[in-house]
Amino acid sequence: MREPRRIPPATIARLPLYLRELEELGEAGQDVVSSRVLSELTQFSSEQIRKDLAYFGAFGRRGIGYSVGHLAAAIRRILGIAEEPELALVGAGRLGTALLRYLGRRHAGLSVGAVFDSDPGKSMGQVEGHRVLPASAIAEEVRQRKIRLAAITVPATAAQEVFAALVEGGVQAVLNFAPVKLKHPSVFVHNLDLATELQALAYYGQAKGGTGRERPDA
Amino acid sequence: MREPRRIPPATIARLPLYLRELEELGEAGQDVVSSRVLSELTQFSSEQIRKDLAYFGAFGRRGIGYSVGHLAAAIRRILGIAEEPELALVGAGRLGTALLRYLGRRHAGLSVGAVFDSDPGKSMGQVEGHRVLPASAIAEEVRQRKIRLAAITVPATAAQEVFAALVEGGVQAVLNFAPVKLKHPSVFVHNLDLATELQALAYYGQAKGGTGRERPDA
Repeated sequence: MREPRRIPPATIARLPLYLRELEELGEAGQDVVSSRVLSELTQFSSEQIRKDLAYFGAFGRRGIGYSVGHLAAAIRRILGIAEEPELALVGAGRLGTALLRYLGRRHAGLSVGAVFDSDPGKSMGQVEGHRVLPASAIAEEVRQRKIRLAAITVPATAAQEVFAALVEGGVQAVLNFAPVKLKHPSVFVHNLDLATELQALAYYGQAKGGTGRERPDA
Repeated sequence: MREPRRIPPATIARLPLYLRELEELGEAGQDVVSSRVLSELTQFSSEQIRKDLAYFGAFGRRGIGYSVGHLAAAIRRILGIAEEPELALVGAGRLGTALLRYLGRRHAGLSVGAVFDSDPGKSMGQVEGHRVLPASAIAEEVRQRKIRLAAITVPATAAQEVFAALVEGGVQAVLNFAPVKLKHPSVFVHNLDLATELQALAYYGQAKGGTGRERPDA
């Protein structure tokens, strides 16, 4: 929200969803995709897609559509994943390990540059093929490797401290899974609290007729 | 996106974020919060907050603000978490276990009603205090317990099949972590692909000046 750049975060968040569909189309041998089909696949309106892409240049031709390979490559460049940037992961517990395994399996355009954990039993060991370093090494290691991206999968109590170390090391963007709201004036933070995701889900699981539109204070 | 109800999904997604701040204020002994402070805490504009809440009734008083306890209780009722609904979890791997542990620690207003896994070694065992049932039992168990919410944390290859079983059992809302887009005309699905979250993050980690606004096709 405090991101100084002018492009709406919601636009940036949609780009990987467009990319995923384009990659699947490309694998299926499609060279061109119409704006209507891309809209159906992503479930965003053609207008929304056009508006999002217009921030970055002119893509697509009226009556023809988008070049699948060209648009996918452009989105990878815009997101900065064409160069496969390195990610630091802090917290080699279950969630962190799941994330490492997942990134190892799926080619997402990111590589794992460093893994940290404050548990001395875990640090100096290996998790999913990555050496685990002690949390005390975060700032130094991140600075030396020029890592700009990080994911935090530590318990709530440890999150603020590892965040400070990441920022000290020069990290510019953090995906935080700890249920603590982290913020910093010059670092982009996406706080992804799994509990709040489930709470939003609960709304849609209510008994038919429970639209939540009843006056709760009636 | 295909949700037939009129309230925007983005509004529903913000309600748990408002709730989290209200709960923290309540724990700190605050009875009333101004619209300005709530805006600072959540990083959403006062206008956005007012607009979101207006879907559900009249909250807050001009010049006074919101009653912390009243608004928190109203949001819990709107989301349907006041009655602590049950959630089915399919996939007792690392991510699933992390989610169970997390829900056990944090009082989020949801309880775990059933845990499933297709691995015979895991099913019939226990994970985080929950008995793990075989995936073949999903539809029957979910129907019997009238579970309407589910989280899917299985590999991509298994996601479609367990989704079908959940829908057959009557589940109405699903949080899907598998990197496969699940959809159904009458079931709300939130596809939360951790790779796409990281790809969006990558944008903000680019070297200074790399705003992504350069013409990628130049």
